[in-house]
Amino acid sequence: MDYVMVKYIKNKPKLKNPILIEGLPGIGNVGKLAVEHLIDSIKATKFAELYCKDFPPQVFINTDGTTELVKNEFYYWKAKEKKQRDLILLTGDYQGLSSQGQYELCEKILDIAEEFKVKELYTLGGYGLGQDISSPKVLCAATNKNLIKNIKKQGAIFKKNEPGGGIVGASGLLLGLGKIRGFEGVCLMGETPGYLVDPKSAKAVLNIIMNITNLKVNLSALEKKAKEIEQIAQQLKEIETHTRDKSEELKYIG
Amino acid sequence: MDYVMVKYIKNKPKLKNPILIEGLPGIGNVGKLAVEHLIDSIKATKFAELYCKDFPPQVFINTDGTTELVKNEFYYWKAKEKKQRDLILLTGDYQGLSSQGQYELCEKILDIAEEFKVKELYTLGGYGLGQDISSPKVLCAATNKNLIKNIKKQGAIFKKNEPGGGIVGASGLLLGLGKIRGFEGVCLMGETPGYLVDPKSAKAVLNIIMNITNLKVNLSALEKKAKEIEQIAQQLKEIETHTRDKSEELKYIG
Amino acid sequence: MDYVMVKYIKNKPKLKNPILIEGLPGIGNVGKLAVEHLIDSIKATKFAELYCKDFPPQVFINTDGTTELVKNEFYYWKAKEKKQRDLILLTGDYQGLSSQGQYELCEKILDIAEEFKVKELYTLGGYGLGQDISSPKVLCAATNKNLIKNIKKQGAIFKKNEPGGGIVGASGLLLGLGKIRGFEGVCLMGETPGYLVDPKSAKAVLNIIMNITNLKVNLSALEKKAKEIEQIAQQLKEIETHTRDKSEELKYIG
Amino acid sequence: MDYVMVKYIKNKPKLKNPILIEGLPGIGNVGKLAVEHLIDSIKATKFAELYCKDFPPQVFINTDGTTELVKNEFYYWKAKEKKQRDLILLTGDYQGLSSQGQYELCEKILDIAEEFKVKELYTLGGYGLGQDISSPKVLCAATNKNLIKNIKKQGAIFKKNEPGGGIVGASGLLLGLGKIRGFEGVCLMGETPGYLVDPKSAKAVLNIIMNITNLKVNLSALEKKAKEIEQIAQQLKEIETHTRDKSEELKYIG
Repeated sequence: MDYVMVKYIKNKPKLKNPILIEGLPGIGNVGKLAVEHLIDSIKATKFAELYCKDFPPQVFINTDGTTELVKNEFYYWKAKEKKQRDLILLTGDYQGLSSQGQYELCEKILDIAEEFKVKELYTLGGYGLGQDISSPKVLCAATNKNLIKNIKKQGAIFKKNEPGGGIVGASGLLLGLGKIRGFEGVCLMGETPGYLVDPKSAKAVLNIIMNITNLKVNLSALEKKAKEIEQIAQQLKEIETHTRDKSEELKYIG
Repeated sequence: MDYVMVKYIKNKPKLKNPILIEGLPGIGNVGKLAVEHLIDSIKATKFAELYCKDFPPQVFINTDGTTELVKNEFYYWKAKEKKQRDLILLTGDYQGLSSQGQYELCEKILDIAEEFKVKELYTLGGYGLGQDISSPKVLCAATNKNLIKNIKKQGAIFKKNEPGGGIVGASGLLLGLGKIRGFEGVCLMGETPGYLVDPKSAKAVLNIIMNITNLKVNLSALEKKAKEIEQIAQQLKEIETHTRDKSEELKYIG
Repeated sequence: MDYVMVKYIKNKPKLKNPILIEGLPGIGNVGKLAVEHLIDSIKATKFAELYCKDFPPQVFINTDGTTELVKNEFYYWKAKEKKQRDLILLTGDYQGLSSQGQYELCEKILDIAEEFKVKELYTLGGYGLGQDISSPKVLCAATNKNLIKNIKKQGAIFKKNEPGGGIVGASGLLLGLGKIRGFEGVCLMGETPGYLVDPKSAKAVLNIIMNITNLKVNLSALEKKAKEIEQIAQQLKEIETHTRDKSEELKYIG
Repeated sequence: MDYVMVKYIKNKPKLKNPILIEGLPGIGNVGKLAVEHLIDSIKATKFAELYCKDFPPQVFINTDGTTELVKNEFYYWKAKEKKQRDLILLTGDYQGLSSQGQYELCEKILDIAEEFKVKELYTLGGYGLGQDISSPKVLCAATNKNLIKNIKKQGAIFKKNEPGGGIVGASGLLLGLGKIRGFEGVCLMGETPGYLVDPKSAKAVLNIIMNITNLKVNLSALEKKAKEIEQIAQQLKEIETHTRDKSEELKYIG
């Protein structure tokens, strides 16, 4: 097996001028949640798996007890209407663990994108604020200025000097390496506290993607998950407050 | 020397339709204990050693003062009865230290398995519960559903969503990479507290292996070791309790 | 993409007997600040970018929202007067993260230097003292004794056994690997507390570089930055003192 | 530059049946101190340097201000008397930082040893006891039983199951990898507290080496260094005791 290996599980689909949408694990798992929800909603078809020696040496276990080597997955979807575009969707269990692994992985992903004559990349991720946020906005960055202008029309915002540290991981690297190879690309980052998986932020990101792709996606499942996560967050806060109170009491006793 | 190197110390044995049983170090050293006990009991013959640049740069010292480069070891055993199968047994000092090392190592192990026309892999390990356990069960996962059914008949159990984190290390990776290359495989995981080496869990795993292979293995040595470990565990607990009591006392004095 | 990749963004400039001046991130960012200020002042022209799989998997975001893969950058400048020399200037976002990455990166930098027939390297960095310093001196080391003599005439000093730990990173490695390949080289290290970026130390280093290259550079921008940093340092100190006082108070109460 | 690079700085010496003695940095720097002292005493001649991408990216600075890339060094010495043997001596600034680097480095060292038709390796190191020791013994391990017998006659001892963890680093790996390639080898480990560099332990090791090689080496410089280190150790102990006393006092006050 090569350092990164692609395994086609279907004949290569014939796609017309497709765009690639990436959502791998990251802060709040925003990108992964968004792309997985999109895949489910539009019933996209898996056509390839990607294995990498920089992923953890691990299998996951399906509900029927069968093992699955950790991987990234490619799906495709063919446009139903004139104003829509063919899609390639990328999600997976992990990003590369090391710097070199991340570079190798993104280069391979771009190889595949080139093979299908992809010209535009949309990478989805979270922007960790470290604090609660009631209605997350979606920040954007892109490989050229015009794209920023377009994407702002679709509801994303651009704040100068944010994220201050740039974009770390596949969502950034695909644009960085892609630009060198002639791809155009946009990164959409949903604001998120970043403590827990964040379906609310994923929903905000998907709203922009729906505008861009002229797709209608039922977001109620994400909304339901978001409520569950909010309850868990609330419970965690109560436990924390309670623990702090107890420890204050103890100080006075001492 | 290549990144992974195989050194045959005997002519390659001629085996008929052998199965491979792996037991490398891991949680509670369950897999390693089980396979080593099996090797001793059935008097399997070592035929190859495997060195790897991702193992620690280390030699062990034999009781006669001679040095041994850290390694993995392959043994074989030829079936004595009709209902038995030829075996290749794999154990060793270490797993790979890095992700890439683990992948390279498991690929080389599968190369050797292919060379001997192995079609079925049994990988043995521990499932760490983080708490005491009186009679450890043996969980299983496999490369396909039918194997799960068969292995449950031999006494292993399957709990949905356990282990939740999948299987990390060679026991998982051999199945994951093996499945891609057309191997069938089963992972048997003995429940274990995971704090100390666990011969009791190894014994539970070996019971299943005996059913699968139609081998009879005297387990009394493992049982004896298990008792010794239990005594050590008991002593550790007493020391801990005593220390905690002392520190409670000190708090009241303070 | 190779492990290290050079991308020329202009036709290769024709340079006459150029010297290379390196200033990559490091202690107090002294070298980077110095070279960046020099590039701005003399209006040097960027001609190449260098990407590396050992840099973090990251893009930075420009003020207009466009993404930039993290990189090192080469600039050139052609001498205006007889007593001056053509220059190649190297700065960037990162040094390699791993030992091997640093070696690969420096080898590639030396490849480029060889291509332009560079014979002399000047590497700039900081020498961390871990304490405040009012007027930083500039220490030097070199690939041969005569260079030390020359460089001391330009205002650098040499203290026996300093820095005691040698020079770690690109500034050291370029001289070390360069010497093997026949380059001559000097490392200039501005004394710095090392806690914050240190424009004052960068200014001290640039003063020596001005003497060596017969360039006149307006240093007022560095001086202004230095004052801002001094204020920040002062504020940090006050916060620290205040926190310590408070915690002393609390001890007495307790 | 290759991952490991050898640079001959002299014509390759013609040696007759030489033995290789290795002393690289490690616990108590015992091996390095011993070999460096031997090199100085017998006035061995440096003939090669070895650079490695797994060494730190670092230069050291000589007392005249010139830089030296971190490296390993090979020296040779030709026998003066009939009962003596030609020697190759190996010391250096660092061992490899990573497992793989250690393997690559030791393979290259063995390549060089093969080139000079070396058949016997002596590797020198420390055995850390974690406690003071008045007269350090020298433990041994070897690639075969007969060597153990011989080396015990020269004053080394062999304790069953010591060191329990085997031998980690170049001293172990050279024997481990060397054995596979047909070398015979002995590791001599001087007992040492392991906290500080330990010339006393190095002296003990050199005593054995003198017996093996029929060399007479003046050990007074090592003895002098040993006394200095003992004084430093004594001072450190006093500081520690004083600090502990103070903190005990404070507890009673509180």
